[in-house]
Amino acid sequence: MSVTGWVYLDGAYMAAQDAQISPFDRGFLFAQAAYEVTAVYNQKLIDFEPHLKRLSRTLAGLEIEMPKEDLLVVHQQLIRRNNLQEGLIYLNVSAGMQGIRDFSGPETLVPSIFAFANRKQLIGDTARDGIATISMPDTRWQRRDLKTTQLVTQSLAYRAARRAGAVTAILHEDGIVTEAASANVWIVTQDGQLVTRDLSHALLPGITRARLISLLQNGADQVEERAFTLDDVRNAREVFTSSAGAMIAPVLSLDGDSIGEGQPGPVTRAIQAAYYQFIGADLAALDWL
Amino acid sequence: MSVTGWVYLDGAYMAAQDAQISPFDRGFLFAQAAYEVTAVYNQKLIDFEPHLKRLSRTLAGLEIEMPKEDLLVVHQQLIRRNNLQEGLIYLNVSAGMQGIRDFSGPETLVPSIFAFANRKQLIGDTARDGIATISMPDTRWQRRDLKTTQLVTQSLAYRAARRAGAVTAILHEDGIVTEAASANVWIVTQDGQLVTRDLSHALLPGITRARLISLLQNGADQVEERAFTLDDVRNAREVFTSSAGAMIAPVLSLDGDSIGEGQPGPVTRAIQAAYYQFIGADLAALDWL
Repeated sequence: MSVTGWVYLDGAYMAAQDAQISPFDRGFLFAQAAYEVTAVYNQKLIDFEPHLKRLSRTLAGLEIEMPKEDLLVVHQQLIRRNNLQEGLIYLNVSAGMQGIRDFSGPETLVPSIFAFANRKQLIGDTARDGIATISMPDTRWQRRDLKTTQLVTQSLAYRAARRAGAVTAILHEDGIVTEAASANVWIVTQDGQLVTRDLSHALLPGITRARLISLLQNGADQVEERAFTLDDVRNAREVFTSSAGAMIAPVLSLDGDSIGEGQPGPVTRAIQAAYYQFIGADLAALDWL
Repeated sequence: MSVTGWVYLDGAYMAAQDAQISPFDRGFLFAQAAYEVTAVYNQKLIDFEPHLKRLSRTLAGLEIEMPKEDLLVVHQQLIRRNNLQEGLIYLNVSAGMQGIRDFSGPETLVPSIFAFANRKQLIGDTARDGIATISMPDTRWQRRDLKTTQLVTQSLAYRAARRAGAVTAILHEDGIVTEAASANVWIVTQDGQLVTRDLSHALLPGITRARLISLLQNGADQVEERAFTLDDVRNAREVFTSSAGAMIAPVLSLDGDSIGEGQPGPVTRAIQAAYYQFIGADLAALDWL
């Protein structure tokens, strides 16, 4: 399998296939690495500042120093060099190569940086047509508010979803929903209440989630932030996920059972419209919205 | 920081500082990697077969194919090329580089292999003098029976222990001990009962742990496999850990409080003697035993 385009690695821009790190990197040996994925639309970074703030929070949790590099410039360079109109910039800040493998490592963990661009339709088929999901136990560690590369649960969830003919998984602990495999989950109850889970160590504080809450504060819909169950998802009028990579994805089924009408609902469509407007999309061109 | 010696990387032996992997490797991006650490004493691998069996179990759990390479030969080559008398062979089998970052990856995850030798005294100061420990919440994921590189909790535990003037941490969930940061925990109760936690998804099935149970079956001491608490550790007559890297390490204190007499106890010494005899050590040379 090959990779293409320009990437950034510890101070230099290079072809993706030329990027090489030491297998002694603590990101590889211990998953001691923070990451962020920022959406790019019309060559513009979406909500870069909160991504950077969350990165700094994760790095503090991992006891890795914040990089001295201007990460905004790195992102802008990757957009320019890859001529990225729409897609994602992935940024990984690991605890770096610190000599022979040792759980503690040196007192100061000087970071290593890796970043690349991923061309992708953010407002695409998923946004238009919605997705099928399965439910899976959330087996992740207890500090899911930190965005680390400890992503085995998520990878296995996506793989199980694909085998079941679905797109992603909704993760839960004893029936209580935490989030989707790489997105926050929202429901519209039969009473018309818009609900997403309140923040804690149990889930990632999504940047798109925060942006939606902020956008909705200016509108008619109010968001209730509280825990809800898989049954609440099954019985919801509408369900959708929010993430940088798929933005607002209508969820049409869970474990093979249709949710609501089995079609993207009006609240979901309104929220998509609000978010696409926020990122500067041409709503008139989105005839399905 | 530099690394030395010979390592193995995907079919070739090379100098450690020349080993390079792609940062697109799924081990780096998703911690989708299994690992094993096998002890070497007098140039001989200790319990290699159960390590290999556990590796295969972890790989199945991660949906990575078992490598086709003869891993025993890789280990033997690393011992020979590094002239390793006493130490560890670290083996990492990751889901490899499978193109651009994607949570699912291809259906078949062909593994990449990285292995290196680490010169280390396995029967050294730690075994002789014992160690101080601190207690820490076990924040790891829910499948700790799989030996993955999702090791942030462990790294942070070792770092916190060092800051507290201790060597390692005893991990617990709501006061119930799971294991130490990279070892199983054993206690000798005031009644003289030898206890270690029963196996489940909550802890790693240690190879040294299994070997000790097997050695003890032939002796006078019987092992009770059950859960125990931090208080049980504090009130124990003796405590020790078992692992490939430190073998049998007497635990002399927890969070600054002495355990028992604050010295390695007779049961611990007897178990050390039995294990060192099993690996072929010259007991007469260990005058402190």
